[in-house]
Formats: sequence, C-alpha cells, structure tokens
Amino acid sequence: MARIVYVNGRYLPYAQAGVHVEDRGFQFADAVYEVCEVRGGALVDPTRHLARLARSLRELSIPAPMPDAALRHVLRQTVRRNRITDGLLYLQVTRGRAPRDFLFPDAATEPTLVVVARALDPARVAAKARAGIAVRSVPDNRWGRCDLKTVMLLPAALAKETARRDGAQEAWFVDRDGYVTEGASSNAWIVRSDGFVLTPPLGPAILGGVTRATLIDVLAASGVPFEERRFTIAEAQRAREAFVTSASATVMPVVRIDDGRVGDGRPGTLTLRLREKFHDVAELAPV
Amino acid sequence: MARIVYVNGRYLPYAQAGVHVEDRGFQFADAVYEVCEVRGGALVDPTRHLARLARSLRELSIPAPMPDAALRHVLRQTVRRNRITDGLLYLQVTRGRAPRDFLFPDAATEPTLVVVARALDPARVAAKARAGIAVRSVPDNRWGRCDLKTVMLLPAALAKETARRDGAQEAWFVDRDGYVTEGASSNAWIVRSDGFVLTPPLGPAILGGVTRATLIDVLAASGVPFEERRFTIAEAQRAREAFVTSASATVMPVVRIDDGRVGDGRPGTLTLRLREKFHDVAELAPV
Repeated sequence: MARIVYVNGRYLPYAQAGVHVEDRGFQFADAVYEVCEVRGGALVDPTRHLARLARSLRELSIPAPMPDAALRHVLRQTVRRNRITDGLLYLQVTRGRAPRDFLFPDAATEPTLVVVARALDPARVAAKARAGIAVRSVPDNRWGRCDLKTVMLLPAALAKETARRDGAQEAWFVDRDGYVTEGASSNAWIVRSDGFVLTPPLGPAILGGVTRATLIDVLAASGVPFEERRFTIAEAQRAREAFVTSASATVMPVVRIDDGRVGDGRPGTLTLRLREKFHDVAELAPV
Repeated sequence: MARIVYVNGRYLPYAQAGVHVEDRGFQFADAVYEVCEVRGGALVDPTRHLARLARSLRELSIPAPMPDAALRHVLRQTVRRNRITDGLLYLQVTRGRAPRDFLFPDAATEPTLVVVARALDPARVAAKARAGIAVRSVPDNRWGRCDLKTVMLLPAALAKETARRDGAQEAWFVDRDGYVTEGASSNAWIVRSDGFVLTPPLGPAILGGVTRATLIDVLAASGVPFEERRFTIAEAQRAREAFVTSASATVMPVVRIDDGRVGDGRPGTLTLRLREKFHDVAELAPV
C-alpha cells in the first residue's frame, strides 16, 4: 500500500494525492511515465529509466520537471518515506495544468510530476515465475508512437482484460502483417529451437524496454546467441521457450500462447537462468 | 473562466477541483468525455450527447456514473453555478480510482465524474467563421477505436500543434489509403462541384459527431443533396466548399487545405447558410 505520494513538490498522504481536473494528463493523455523496480532497497536501472524518460519528454516537447539529480532525490525520498525494500516506483510527468485546449499551453506552464511507490512481495513474483504465465494474442490497434512511454494505455488495459477473460496473464499485440510487436505491458521474446533468443527490433510499435536493454546485456555477458528479429504467434508457439520482460516482472516465463503450449508447458531452463542472472548485470542504485 | 467544477458529487471551487493521482483517467487514459455547446442559456443536443456517452461507456464496460436524469441535473447545475449563457460544457467519466493495474478494478469501483463549464464569446466564434480556417493534413496515427470518445487525445493534440506551427487552425487526419478520416477535434466535410455535400462514413476511425448528426438533419430539412463518402485531400482542395463540424465551432468554414485554397478562398455560401440554420434544427434544452 502506498502511503506517501510525491506531487509537484510535496509529499502528501495517499488519500490527498490529487492532480487538477484540467491537468493534461487527465484530459488529453498528454503525459509520460516510468516504472522502476525497487529491489533490496535499491533502484534497478535508474540511469536507463531516466534516459528513456528524457527521450519521451523531448519527443513530445514536454519540459523536464527538474534536473536528473533532483529527480533521483525525489525517487529516493519517495521510496524511503514509504519504507519500500522491494516494490515498484511509478513516476508520471504531464504537460501540466491549463484550461482545456488541444494546443500546447503557454511555455511557462509547469509540468506535473507524480511519484508513487508501492511494495511488492518478491515471493509472489517468484511463485508466478515458477508457474509461468499464459499469453493471449490480440490485434495491435494502438497508436503510431508506442516507442514513447505515454499514458495512451487504454488499448493495453483492454487487451490485458481480454487476456484475463481467457485465463491469460498477458496479451501480445500482433500487427497487421501477423508479427508480434510487444506485450500490453512487457516486451516479447522467444528462444528458437536452434537456441537463438529473439525479440522484435525496435520501431514505432515497440517500447525500448529498460529490462529489454539490460537483458540484451545479460545475453551478451552469458554468450547466448541473440538476434533482434520479429516473429509470428505460430513461430512463438513452436519455440523452445518464450518469455516477457518488464520492470515489474523482470524475466517472466511464458508457458502457453493462445491454444499452444510452449515447449513442454513449463518455464524454460534458459529463461529461468536469465531471470536469475538479471540483477547481477542490472544497475543497482542503493536508496 | 470556470469557477465551480463538479467532481464526484461536489461542486468545488476551480482551484480545488482535483482527481486522485491513481484515477484511471490520469494513468491509463481510461475515460470518455463529451463537449456540449451552451447557447443562450440552453444545452445544445443534450439527448444526442448523452446517448453517445452511454455508447462510449457501454463499449468500454465503464458503469454509468448516474442515471441520465441525474446527470442532466448536474449539467444544468454546473452551467447555472458558473452563470454561463454561451459557452461549453465539458464532462468526463473515468473508470474510477484504484491502485495502478492495467486490469479493470473491482466491479464496485465507482466511476469518476467531472463537469466543467466555461463561457465562450459568441462574437469571437462568429468572427472566426467569417474569416474561415486553414487546415493542415497529417497522417492518421491514432488507435483503432476513434469511434469512441475517449481521452486518448495525445495524437490529436500533437496534430493540432503541428497545424498551428503551419498557420492552420485544424488538422485533418489522412489514413494510409490517402483518405481524410476526420479533424483532430471535428468532423470533415466538403461541398463537391456538383453541389453534393460529403462527409466520410462512420467507422472505427471516425467519431459519430453530435454536430455531424444534427447537420445531416439540417441538410435533409434543407433539401441539400448529401452523401456519406470518403474523399482525399486533393478532392477536398478541388471542392467548391469545405468545412468542419464540432460542438464548439458548430459549422466552421475551411478556406485553405495545406497549400490549396478552397474555392475562392472565402467561406462558402452553402457552408454559411448551414451554419445559420444549425440551431433551428438542433435540440435546445433550456437550463
């Protein structure tokens, strides 16, 4: 349970943490965000998260709410004030508050910054990883800039809900050419029968996941053959292993895709090995 | 200037009108809205607005925040408390507040309802209509359910900003087949050289505009030949007249599309006639 939330310079009790009804994050989805893992009292990969945040803001011409050093301070403070050892840190930056108008507001408008920290039980995530998850494919009907980490997330929420109704824990978006782009809140990966690990190359339909980038480092450090290459659902169903990556799940085995069992229907051995190695390679910044 | 804002059962001073940082409208664009014209102390086309709101909510499985009669009461109260005679009424319904999770929250979660009223000077809108507006075409990169009036509006905001930089007041989205879908915050229309009025047929890329529907009634009542048919930017540039419809602008003449002057570069006579007739046909519900 989050207790203290940072909102525009103040640390507020959760119940009082609000933004204005004319915040552009609320009225226009004119906002970007990051989700950062907190593990053993350390931020995981903060440098990559802040670099990606800076890119999202720059591409949308949203001013940075504060310098990176100050933002790191706020992140640490929010973790500390919530006494989080293992959990997630959520930060959102919007173009700020202004009388409703599609056009960008006055350049002097201050962006809104919200930071929420929440504990997660690592044992629960570990149990999920031991069981593996099921994935449901859905048509990719999202907008053209999914490389930016914006709050344009309604299609992702709808996709996850569709997956849940079919007993799956994640949805994989499939583009009109039949290729998997990414998960609703994760990047998609397979281990081909020749041992190559594949994930789709970056592009407008794919978020450059921080966990994705660090996992590529893990693969390189482990000497595992890797290629950025797109794949279809049928190819993923025939794969030896499959998994997803995200800050909240790190490396999560996929054991079923639609009606197809992946491999023998149990988490892949390479997947579990990569999961174990992940935090040896990731940047850990003590809070 | 809005003074009093309705938020979840309370009429609050503007400065204090907030929603929680974990409102799904803020974190997931999981929200729908309506903009209704207020004219001479009457709501314009409230029945159509409420019907469209009900459809948006139903399609997204968001519960209605209250029965229509109660909602009409809130709309009237918000107009009255802000002493609006001419202006706009903005209402937004979100899936409510819940700890951040892509999955829909517990069915007991109450939707969030926000209503903002703001005065508009009719003389300014009329002056804009006498001058006509310029339109800038942009690729349609929006998501696949633009028939729902959701707050997935970042691409619309970006398109309007692109238009502004090019000296235009509206953007027209063009699909990958080269056809105009709609404006960033309006429906698109042309008057062909044979006198036929055209607007693209409804579909996933087009919002069923309330003003669009009422204008179709105006056309029928006026005996103007009309067809729902898609058109390209080149066809629109060769048209006799062009215009857009929206609740805030009703019928607004378009005099330039990209580099092409429409007709003689002045608002079309049929367009201005339709603009004048509009409120004779629209439903006007006194506040």
